[in-house]
Amino acid sequence: MQSAETEIGVVHTKVGRASDSQVAALTGYGVATVHEVIGRRGLMEPYMRPVYRGSQVCGNAVTVLLQPGDNWMMHVVAELIQEGDVVVAGITSDCPGGYFGDLLATSFKSRGAKGLVIDAGVRDTAQYEAMGFPVWSKYICAQGTVKDTVGSVNVPVMCAGQLVRPGDIVVADDDGVIVVPNELAASAARGALARENSETDKRAKFAKGELGLDMYSMRDGLKTAGLRYVD
Amino acid sequence: MQSAETEIGVVHTKVGRASDSQVAALTGYGVATVHEVIGRRGLMEPYMRPVYRGSQVCGNAVTVLLQPGDNWMMHVVAELIQEGDVVVAGITSDCPGGYFGDLLATSFKSRGAKGLVIDAGVRDTAQYEAMGFPVWSKYICAQGTVKDTVGSVNVPVMCAGQLVRPGDIVVADDDGVIVVPNELAASAARGALARENSETDKRAKFAKGELGLDMYSMRDGLKTAGLRYVD
Amino acid sequence: MQSAETEIGVVHTKVGRASDSQVAALTGYGVATVHEVIGRRGLMEPYMRPVYRGSQVCGNAVTVLLQPGDNWMMHVVAELIQEGDVVVAGITSDCPGGYFGDLLATSFKSRGAKGLVIDAGVRDTAQYEAMGFPVWSKYICAQGTVKDTVGSVNVPVMCAGQLVRPGDIVVADDDGVIVVPNELAASAARGALARENSETDKRAKFAKGELGLDMYSMRDGLKTAGLRYVD
Amino acid sequence: MQSAETEIGVVHTKVGRASDSQVAALTGYGVATVHEVIGRRGLMEPYMRPVYRGSQVCGNAVTVLLQPGDNWMMHVVAELIQEGDVVVAGITSDCPGGYFGDLLATSFKSRGAKGLVIDAGVRDTAQYEAMGFPVWSKYICAQGTVKDTVGSVNVPVMCAGQLVRPGDIVVADDDGVIVVPNELAASAARGALARENSETDKRAKFAKGELGLDMYSMRDGLKTAGLRYVD
Amino acid sequence: MQSAETEIGVVHTKVGRASDSQVAALTGYGVATVHEVIGRRGLMEPYMRPVYRGSQVCGNAVTVLLQPGDNWMMHVVAELIQEGDVVVAGITSDCPGGYFGDLLATSFKSRGAKGLVIDAGVRDTAQYEAMGFPVWSKYICAQGTVKDTVGSVNVPVMCAGQLVRPGDIVVADDDGVIVVPNELAASAARGALARENSETDKRAKFAKGELGLDMYSMRDGLKTAGLRYVD
Amino acid sequence: MQSAETEIGVVHTKVGRASDSQVAALTGYGVATVHEVIGRRGLMEPYMRPVYRGSQVCGNAVTVLLQPGDNWMMHVVAELIQEGDVVVAGITSDCPGGYFGDLLATSFKSRGAKGLVIDAGVRDTAQYEAMGFPVWSKYICAQGTVKDTVGSVNVPVMCAGQLVRPGDIVVADDDGVIVVPNELAASAARGALARENSETDKRAKFAKGELGLDMYSMRDGLKTAGLRYVD
Repeated sequence: MQSAETEIGVVHTKVGRASDSQVAALTGYGVATVHEVIGRRGLMEPYMRPVYRGSQVCGNAVTVLLQPGDNWMMHVVAELIQEGDVVVAGITSDCPGGYFGDLLATSFKSRGAKGLVIDAGVRDTAQYEAMGFPVWSKYICAQGTVKDTVGSVNVPVMCAGQLVRPGDIVVADDDGVIVVPNELAASAARGALARENSETDKRAKFAKGELGLDMYSMRDGLKTAGLRYVD
Repeated sequence: MQSAETEIGVVHTKVGRASDSQVAALTGYGVATVHEVIGRRGLMEPYMRPVYRGSQVCGNAVTVLLQPGDNWMMHVVAELIQEGDVVVAGITSDCPGGYFGDLLATSFKSRGAKGLVIDAGVRDTAQYEAMGFPVWSKYICAQGTVKDTVGSVNVPVMCAGQLVRPGDIVVADDDGVIVVPNELAASAARGALARENSETDKRAKFAKGELGLDMYSMRDGLKTAGLRYVD
Repeated sequence: MQSAETEIGVVHTKVGRASDSQVAALTGYGVATVHEVIGRRGLMEPYMRPVYRGSQVCGNAVTVLLQPGDNWMMHVVAELIQEGDVVVAGITSDCPGGYFGDLLATSFKSRGAKGLVIDAGVRDTAQYEAMGFPVWSKYICAQGTVKDTVGSVNVPVMCAGQLVRPGDIVVADDDGVIVVPNELAASAARGALARENSETDKRAKFAKGELGLDMYSMRDGLKTAGLRYVD
Repeated sequence: MQSAETEIGVVHTKVGRASDSQVAALTGYGVATVHEVIGRRGLMEPYMRPVYRGSQVCGNAVTVLLQPGDNWMMHVVAELIQEGDVVVAGITSDCPGGYFGDLLATSFKSRGAKGLVIDAGVRDTAQYEAMGFPVWSKYICAQGTVKDTVGSVNVPVMCAGQLVRPGDIVVADDDGVIVVPNELAASAARGALARENSETDKRAKFAKGELGLDMYSMRDGLKTAGLRYVD
Repeated sequence: MQSAETEIGVVHTKVGRASDSQVAALTGYGVATVHEVIGRRGLMEPYMRPVYRGSQVCGNAVTVLLQPGDNWMMHVVAELIQEGDVVVAGITSDCPGGYFGDLLATSFKSRGAKGLVIDAGVRDTAQYEAMGFPVWSKYICAQGTVKDTVGSVNVPVMCAGQLVRPGDIVVADDDGVIVVPNELAASAARGALARENSETDKRAKFAKGELGLDMYSMRDGLKTAGLRYVD
Repeated sequence: MQSAETEIGVVHTKVGRASDSQVAALTGYGVATVHEVIGRRGLMEPYMRPVYRGSQVCGNAVTVLLQPGDNWMMHVVAELIQEGDVVVAGITSDCPGGYFGDLLATSFKSRGAKGLVIDAGVRDTAQYEAMGFPVWSKYICAQGTVKDTVGSVNVPVMCAGQLVRPGDIVVADDDGVIVVPNELAASAARGALARENSETDKRAKFAKGELGLDMYSMRDGLKTAGLRYVD
């Protein structure tokens, strides 16, 4: 479902992308880490899953708004992809089907896209891993689509419960997909670095058997909260 | 799930409500009608269903953002309800439970609320119809909640796939719930009136057996689109 | 999903309906009864639910095949409805939306239809009960549809897991929907009558407290099957 | 799914019922109230829903364990029903179908049962309300069942995520179903009475417009928890 | 759910298989390709998923109709498997469980089956990949089944929303499962070859960065349909 | 949902574990095998799935009861893990979220845990396979949790439809998760060994093409049950 302000029938050719350095600074951090450092918000619904496990992307969103059972706009958005973008596809009404396959994957990849996040279905899913083109989708479905009704490109779209604006940074991995507004990118990158450093220390301690109870000084708080130990 | 810009821990006491006349102008039109006249957008996901059938509300949204398993903010939003408001509750993470029951319904109603739309669960559901307090919810669930963690009041919230801003007009009936931005209220009201008038005519014709094929002059279009009749 | 043999783009104007007496003979029997007497087959998936409780229909199917997000064919099928028909709508790809509302209900009813069974969504659901037009649907959803792509009318369609051929008898009540091929109608009617008579007797005995264990002589069978009683 | 200790093929004829006065003391309290006073536990999963709205039961559980697609045990449990019991049916493996219809409803009712809670499907659902026999079920489904494989009667069964032992008190209403062990019945009844009295007072205050913020003295706690008000 | 015409209790020993050359001609084409060339029909519901990714089968269907919680017929169908067949299992009523495991996989494979498509559950799923026996199923579930009630073998069965007749060609891969009637096999094979050739050309062009907008001459159509570009 | 007897706010430091030899005796048998030998009971709901395929664990349960959106107790249970334990996490109310990530996985593993079974969500799921720490979960979700409300450790918990007591043996593999009470461990191990031996013989026969119909002497039973062969 799209909001009442969503423009339909419009292609915005300009996208306010985050800078390369902003994207680079966030690249490599997992979705869970980024989610923590931007205040535990921005996560897509957990039904948005990778077609194959083990990939990770971070890039600027170019957005496309599809109509049910119609993938015409996929070809329109292809022209506007720049190196490093992640295509984010919303739909005006939930409708399974195969809106994307290996030809479009070839096209998107050759235009520079790092991956696709789509609130609908995809097909030719056996090919994506070999091609190195990661896809996060709601459905896997071979059902064909038509090219009859226009949607939009590079308007803000709802995708798996998140409003994604063109140029937002999108981070996706095996845990799911998160949307980071450009203006939060710098602080998010700093936060993620700090968190990872802190976690590296903690990981080493945990690996030696140290307890979170002690590392985080939780024992008093638990007692205060009423936790009782019984032998 | 809430967006990365959602404020947590904040109560906005001022709400930019639509005027009484704007609300009045839209009152009485069904969700399907309003949906058509604002461009087929703004609809919440179909899982948002009335607890009991047969009610209809139209009012300004006051919004509340809940934490999972915690209904503390429900008491905070109660103070900010004005006559004719509809309370819209989002949640930071999907979590069934009974965030609302007959006491809060009594409170909300006495403060002037026309109804509740909640992206979570409610309980004491046998009472709402007798009280005349309609509720649209994702779940019906008696599970108790706590009052430990703050959320927000009157910040934009995601609710059943729609971003709802405080003061947006919310229309709900047996078909579901739709969100109308204030600035669209006047044109929506005009459109809804025109559509209802037009539908009254059409309804009369349909009732006499006239066909949509003829009323809408569809026969040529269908032929052009390739439809074949076979005896 | 439709089968590989489904014709698209075709309207069959002739339907091999069951005779009035065949339909009359089956009318008034519940879905569960009919299901039993035709060999426990022919039932649609349980997700096919009445919009309002308490109605029951039995009639000849006229069928319509919709395209996702498109309700054009609904106007085409309207012309082919005869007194006492039940419209059965399949779709080429699962897609929620409001393919049917009160105007079409007015049209279908004035043309003689007894009800609608639709493997998709409907809207204006507050009106159907007052109109006396019962609807069984997969979804309730106000989302608008377009009129762009042709489907078919009066071809065999898949609907909620059943293949429905034009002219098949469709029985629907609060329990769901069942499809009876014409050639089974006569024997089904005889079976249903016999079953109801038998059940009237049994109901009276059950109401007096007699046990099924005794009425059906189950005690020996249970013992043989190994059931042990423990005090 | 049933636990590894569940006995199969056994009928226990003796049930350790709560006393009439224990049941009477809890009768009339809603599921949400009882849930609160026994420590927010014991609730069945929210998918367990009433077939028709508006009924409420409280009684001793007699339990029956069904096999998938087989309702033989329903006739066995009928013999062991005593006045005021609620039949609770679990199943060894999730399987929709119509395990119960109006004949069994007649039988159960004439034997004294107040209602049925079943972790599977039921049919003839148009009849229950007129009969005054309330049913809570996972599915509504007309699919017939067989009588081939024995299960058990009056053994502890898993039902909608709760372990129900014969004789446990079961309370069900529009909010769902809760299980109360006999030994908690007396304290639960006292708690429910106290809670209802307290709620009557609060309801009156809420109805006059008093706020929960003040009635529960929440303002300081909210401030401490970091909630900020912004004009 | 099965149709009212489904035979129960019958084993057809003769199957009208497609010829080896028909099967060979379709072998190697993906589900999405075959789906396109037979008119975008014949696809099973998307819930039918491979237990492990990366396999592809094409063969004649031998069909088996199971009863809920009962896998007796699996042993009956085993005898009728011929080299290159794909076993397709429907069920009379939806019921999770483990109807198939590594012993039956060993049996089916040694009899010549290329794989299994089952509208129910399977177990021992860790073994299939090592055995080279691909399985598409609705559920993964270890729950045991019984051998009490007969179904059928080599009758037309409903499986994941498709009617599958014995001898139909079944194609399955990571995208799902499609059913091709024998009489469409030859034209489907020609179509698939043509489509693959055409796609090879297009893939090369897409890989060089050419746009679908230009390859398919879409720009005028999009303009006519009202798409506006905004800088 | 947890039962009415579940203790909240308590940590039991003593666990009645099965002996090392009991665990060792059951180690290596698949879930389906164990399920058969303990009477086809004890299986968790099929939604409990491994994060990555191909692992298998068998160990004593240490249990933890979480509150919705709160993972505080995970640190409490860590201290009580002994070499070879499997942590089983229930929750008081269904609520997706990331209650467990790679730091806790490091901690649990270093304390000796063989794996985690959790009736909620986990994150950092790209790391578990490389770490060799298998996880079975209901959700994969990056949503952060808080540490505000106490639950319990080593009390009996409901997890995916099974009551798990501390010390119960838990077996998990690609088919799902099963719970074996300690007192059944010895007989289960004997039964599993016998079954595996028997299956080895059968597997060899099946691999040579022998039919289950003959190996299990089913032909007469099928005839008696009414199965007809038709050429």
